Amino acid sequence: MSSGLPRSELSLADWIPSGTRDVLPDEMRELRALTDRLRAVFERAGYGEVYTPALEYESPSAQAEGIAHPEWTGPRHAYRVFDEQGAALALRSDMTIPIARVAATRYRQTEPPLRFCYFAHAYRAVRPQRGQSRELLQAGIELVGAPSPEGTAEVLTVLCDALDAAGLRSYRVGLGDASLYPALLETAGVDGQVRERILGELVAGNYVGLERELDALGLGQEDRSLLLAVARTRGGPEVLEGHSGPLEEAVAGLRTVHSLLHPHAAERIIFDLGLVRNLGYYTGAVFQVYDPAHGVPIGQGGRYDQLLARFGRPMPAAGFALGLERVHIALTGEER
Amino acid sequence: MSSGLPRSELSLADWIPSGTRDVLPDEMRELRALTDRLRAVFERAGYGEVYTPALEYESPSAQAEGIAHPEWTGPRHAYRVFDEQGAALALRSDMTIPIARVAATRYRQTEPPLRFCYFAHAYRAVRPQRGQSRELLQAGIELVGAPSPEGTAEVLTVLCDALDAAGLRSYRVGLGDASLYPALLETAGVDGQVRERILGELVAGNYVGLERELDALGLGQEDRSLLLAVARTRGGPEVLEGHSGPLEEAVAGLRTVHSLLHPHAAERIIFDLGLVRNLGYYTGAVFQVYDPAHGVPIGQGGRYDQLLARFGRPMPAAGFALGLERVHIALTGEER
Repeated sequence: MSSGLPRSELSLADWIPSGTRDVLPDEMRELRALTDRLRAVFERAGYGEVYTPALEYESPSAQAEGIAHPEWTGPRHAYRVFDEQGAALALRSDMTIPIARVAATRYRQTEPPLRFCYFAHAYRAVRPQRGQSRELLQAGIELVGAPSPEGTAEVLTVLCDALDAAGLRSYRVGLGDASLYPALLETAGVDGQVRERILGELVAGNYVGLERELDALGLGQEDRSLLLAVARTRGGPEVLEGHSGPLEEAVAGLRTVHSLLHPHAAERIIFDLGLVRNLGYYTGAVFQVYDPAHGVPIGQGGRYDQLLARFGRPMPAAGFALGLERVHIALTGEER
Repeated sequence: MSSGLPRSELSLADWIPSGTRDVLPDEMRELRALTDRLRAVFERAGYGEVYTPALEYESPSAQAEGIAHPEWTGPRHAYRVFDEQGAALALRSDMTIPIARVAATRYRQTEPPLRFCYFAHAYRAVRPQRGQSRELLQAGIELVGAPSPEGTAEVLTVLCDALDAAGLRSYRVGLGDASLYPALLETAGVDGQVRERILGELVAGNYVGLERELDALGLGQEDRSLLLAVARTRGGPEVLEGHSGPLEEAVAGLRTVHSLLHPHAAERIIFDLGLVRNLGYYTGAVFQVYDPAHGVPIGQGGRYDQLLARFGRPMPAAGFALGLERVHIALTGEER
């Protein structure tokens, strides 16, 4: 020992950064068993596993000289990385964007659809004392070149097959449409920063904040009621009935997707018209996976029909990511 | 597409940093099969898989207030990482140091020996245009609390079992002792910066540079000849015979280790008296894995009997790390 301080005065947290953890053999064995079951489902469905570098350019196109992506809205990297030459890189924050890059650049001559899966860590920002993870082990698929509704239905089916194979019994998939609430706001004449604030409250599930924002707008009673009602509309296929206008158009899409699902997947769906995701690339159907044994979503996904175009090959696409540690916690919770 | 530049003018290298690569499904399937075979060997030998955070403190003890490790000589992190609060972290550069930390802090009450294995990426510095990898997938074991010679023999046996299970037919394990050459230099009265320069030439395999350094010292003819001869001494058990002084002591240890190996492992060993590793924590036996189908070592390891003490629990230890991409290339090369 190189100092006189008794080792017992050190806590484990002194050795590793907040938001990180060691995975010891008992847990690791269970995580491996879980990933093996998921990989078998993905491969059976035709999804080939890929791995992309954890070290990325800060902008996906930073080195693609002459090509600007002013409209780029992917998630900002949480970690900047400097090598000993001072070159600025970033740590991968998800696998969807790099796999879109792979699909667009490495499979240019391949007839779509393209099917990829992954098991990889993503690196996210943490706020102090929130128990958030800097390093998340994710498992997911990306289906590139298959439009809605069939593509969306395939992704949801593989999702439910994977969760069934994992052994989860009580999970539910909340299904909404990322374009639905923005379209309602547009119809009500709400745009700009107010629109972003309202969507932010919705992403955070803060209905008090949402109501405050709507009240401040001085909307007509009908618009206000509709916006408040839709934000909280959740349930079975019956919640898709009796709508009109832009709402009817979005829910019609959800009805079609639902009609294409196998019963074992269809019965897991809870329609959630107020579901909005905070990743800028989602364009249509969006979903979140819940399990009563875990208080936070254990997975999420959706359609990102505009993302591939940013890598030079426009194609519709959809996918999902499961948080493997969360799925594992939910499994353990269900078994109790 | 968001700009008018023809996409064909972009090379793949424009999208990802030098020294990184995408792993596509065909290769990924083979890498998974390889890791499954290695994991089966490790688990059968009692090694439990662990995972430690990719994001570490820059010094393993930076947050352990009041504890200084002035003698710390582990490999310097190649990548500094900043989160959005500006906190300075680093990317894991190997798994040996974090597993030593885990063994010393999470298994304080457990009777040694402790056996751990891992499959994880390590992040290393690259020099431009050398084709080096920033991100290496490594598989390895650490045997903590088992002294030489038995502990060393166990690690070498698991290493050969793993390479056999991987399907490699032509590999060899170069075995030396990290203390051997430094002891010879000490006996010849060589120390300080000159000693470090000489060891540096040896690590680099630069015998011309080594001879130049030795000539500049004006050593006696006997010392000079011995140092030059030992640096190039490689071969079967016969190279361990007929030595005296500090050399005899080190080779006696290697003889004992060799005598404890099962024949299938013993026949793979090539004694290499000039083998020195550039990671500061190696103390005794060191080894490197070669395969004729790949020009660079595909793995390495050794004893690090002083490392655990730096985490407050002195224990002898040894381990190895295989570069999985290199093992895979060697396998593919052998199959041709």
